[in-house]
Amino acid sequence: MSDSRTGPVFRIAELEIDPGQLDRYKALLSVEIEAAVRTEPGVLFLHAVLLRGSSNKLRIFEGYADQAAYETHLTTPHFLEYKARTAGMVTALRLIETDPVMLRSKSG
Amino acid sequence: MSDSRTGPVFRIAELEIDPGQLDRYKALLSVEIEAAVRTEPGVLFLHAVLLRGSSNKLRIFEGYADQAAYETHLTTPHFLEYKARTAGMVTALRLIETDPVMLRSKSG
Repeated sequence: MSDSRTGPVFRIAELEIDPGQLDRYKALLSVEIEAAVRTEPGVLFLHAVLLRGSSNKLRIFEGYADQAAYETHLTTPHFLEYKARTAGMVTALRLIETDPVMLRSKSG
Repeated sequence: MSDSRTGPVFRIAELEIDPGQLDRYKALLSVEIEAAVRTEPGVLFLHAVLLRGSSNKLRIFEGYADQAAYETHLTTPHFLEYKARTAGMVTALRLIETDPVMLRSKSG
């Protein structure tokens, strides 16, 4: 079990969205993800998908360089704006801490 | 809802592993992931994590260039060897189809 204070941080967010606001939520989330990965050195990836066959269940798989990068992310203007504007859209949120087994992507 | 026959394919695998064989399973999975991403042009990423606080629950987030790339992956020697050698280790497997909302990583 890795020490959560060192090394990369990987988390899974499980969300349910008000179905009537899903399109608006997806737009706001997309803006937030694009800004975070582009401007924050410590945000490795943010992968958001919608479960097929469900109208409103999302999973976001998140990778940060370390715990400090994650905590910095929570203070950024784009994240704070996302949280404020989507507060009335998210009907359930579960954050799952994980430990890496093996992560590989085409870029390394 | 995207057509599942075109465009990238993103899936989530939820697995439970025999706790007594977890270390061996993680080693075999790691070999398979490394080989798939390195040698298969259509395997975009494979991200395997262990849920913290559980001794044996894994999630694998999978990205393929398209449906054909996914089907090719299932026929590769490294995947077939992984499946054969881990068949007695996996006690539960759920494959979840998803549609992309927004996926970004440091490499694009």
